Amino acid sequence: MEKLRTIQDKIISFRNERDWAQFHDPKNLAEALSIEAGELLENYLWKTTEQSRNLSAEELQNVKEELADIFIFLTYLSEEYSIDLLTEVEKKIAVNAAKYPVDKAKGSNKKYTSF
Amino acid sequence: MEKLRTIQDKIISFRNERDWAQFHDPKNLAEALSIEAGELLENYLWKTTEQSRNLSAEELQNVKEELADIFIFLTYLSEEYSIDLLTEVEKKIAVNAAKYPVDKAKGSNKKYTSF
Amino acid sequence: MEKLRTIQDKIISFRNERDWAQFHDPKNLAEALSIEAGELLENYLWKTTEQSRNLSAEELQNVKEELADIFIFLTYLSEEYSIDLLTEVEKKIAVNAAKYPVDKAKGSNKKYTSF
Amino acid sequence: MEKLRTIQDKIISFRNERDWAQFHDPKNLAEALSIEAGELLENYLWKTTEQSRNLSAEELQNVKEELADIFIFLTYLSEEYSIDLLTEVEKKIAVNAAKYPVDKAKGSNKKYTSF
Repeated sequence: MEKLRTIQDKIISFRNERDWAQFHDPKNLAEALSIEAGELLENYLWKTTEQSRNLSAEELQNVKEELADIFIFLTYLSEEYSIDLLTEVEKKIAVNAAKYPVDKAKGSNKKYTSF
Repeated sequence: MEKLRTIQDKIISFRNERDWAQFHDPKNLAEALSIEAGELLENYLWKTTEQSRNLSAEELQNVKEELADIFIFLTYLSEEYSIDLLTEVEKKIAVNAAKYPVDKAKGSNKKYTSF
Repeated sequence: MEKLRTIQDKIISFRNERDWAQFHDPKNLAEALSIEAGELLENYLWKTTEQSRNLSAEELQNVKEELADIFIFLTYLSEEYSIDLLTEVEKKIAVNAAKYPVDKAKGSNKKYTSF
Repeated sequence: MEKLRTIQDKIISFRNERDWAQFHDPKNLAEALSIEAGELLENYLWKTTEQSRNLSAEELQNVKEELADIFIFLTYLSEEYSIDLLTEVEKKIAVNAAKYPVDKAKGSNKKYTSF
């Protein structure tokens, strides 16, 4: 298993070789993330939740590429703020664990504000 | 630097303890990603691209949490299809490198379809 | 039934009284639309398609407000380009009718590119 | 100026001729709106807010079609709940006027929660 940082370095090198950092202000990167999330969602449109578990090979390939794109833009945004994405994820898991204690949240899809 | 897989295992454990996999079909996860991407984008609304580089401490904290949320949903979706996210990212970088060769793409924000 | 233009004039007057046109460049308005669409979608998250037909009174109220917000931003964007929204809708219906002829599209959720 | 209801009736007739109401549960319609909003936003990606005011003829045509699509999905969702969109917009303008009184909001892009 390769370390995350190695991949993120590749993503940043890809950008630097193309001199694209000038276009990658956070506002545009956040837009790019929204656009990619929309493209991901398109693979599930007009499907039931059940049908969404059984994609065609072509749709699945499409989904994989969108997930990769989203990860790439996450990396650019993290780089912008010199933040370590995994550290933030660790913190968020702790926040979520406090919001959604197992005894209240187990088997429920309610938002924490309704506990 | 912690390995990515370790964090992803924590994210999946968090879910399993709460018995939430039943709600996490791909259609709903893709919706969640779109919603989180919108919440991220809200931090940049009514700002210029220049202003987006200078967030307040509160906005920056908000952005960090949204990035973490997006990563968490990426992990759930990857788990659904038993895909290794980093492998897909590696493949996507190769695809993008072919679409955007350095000599054509350097310093340009044009889409590859216009080359 | 009130005419559309009357409402759109109210929306623009609301803005002018607050001197907000300066913030309403199309890029920011398009972001606002994406953000509102995400807030609308949040009302359906973790629901099945069947459940989405039976919202609580509170959720329904929320949906109504999001639909209104989306309409308001549609109006601002139309104003920016001095376009008549209904004329564009008429044109789009004609385009869609050509893409999705009744004999091919009836009862099918396939995209026109697969006909 | 044609009345809004006339256009909305055309949109609903278009759907009925194709027997598409079966796919148009609110969850899927809300997804469609998010996807279209993302496609609209794509026209502004990597642009500054200033550049967004000067689209090419092709981009502008694209924007018009996305605005029409969004309006069409707004109509389908309104129909689902038998709501009159313009009535909701009137109510929302009143809500916004209370949240953003002219003396506090004039010339400011702050959110009402910060007043």
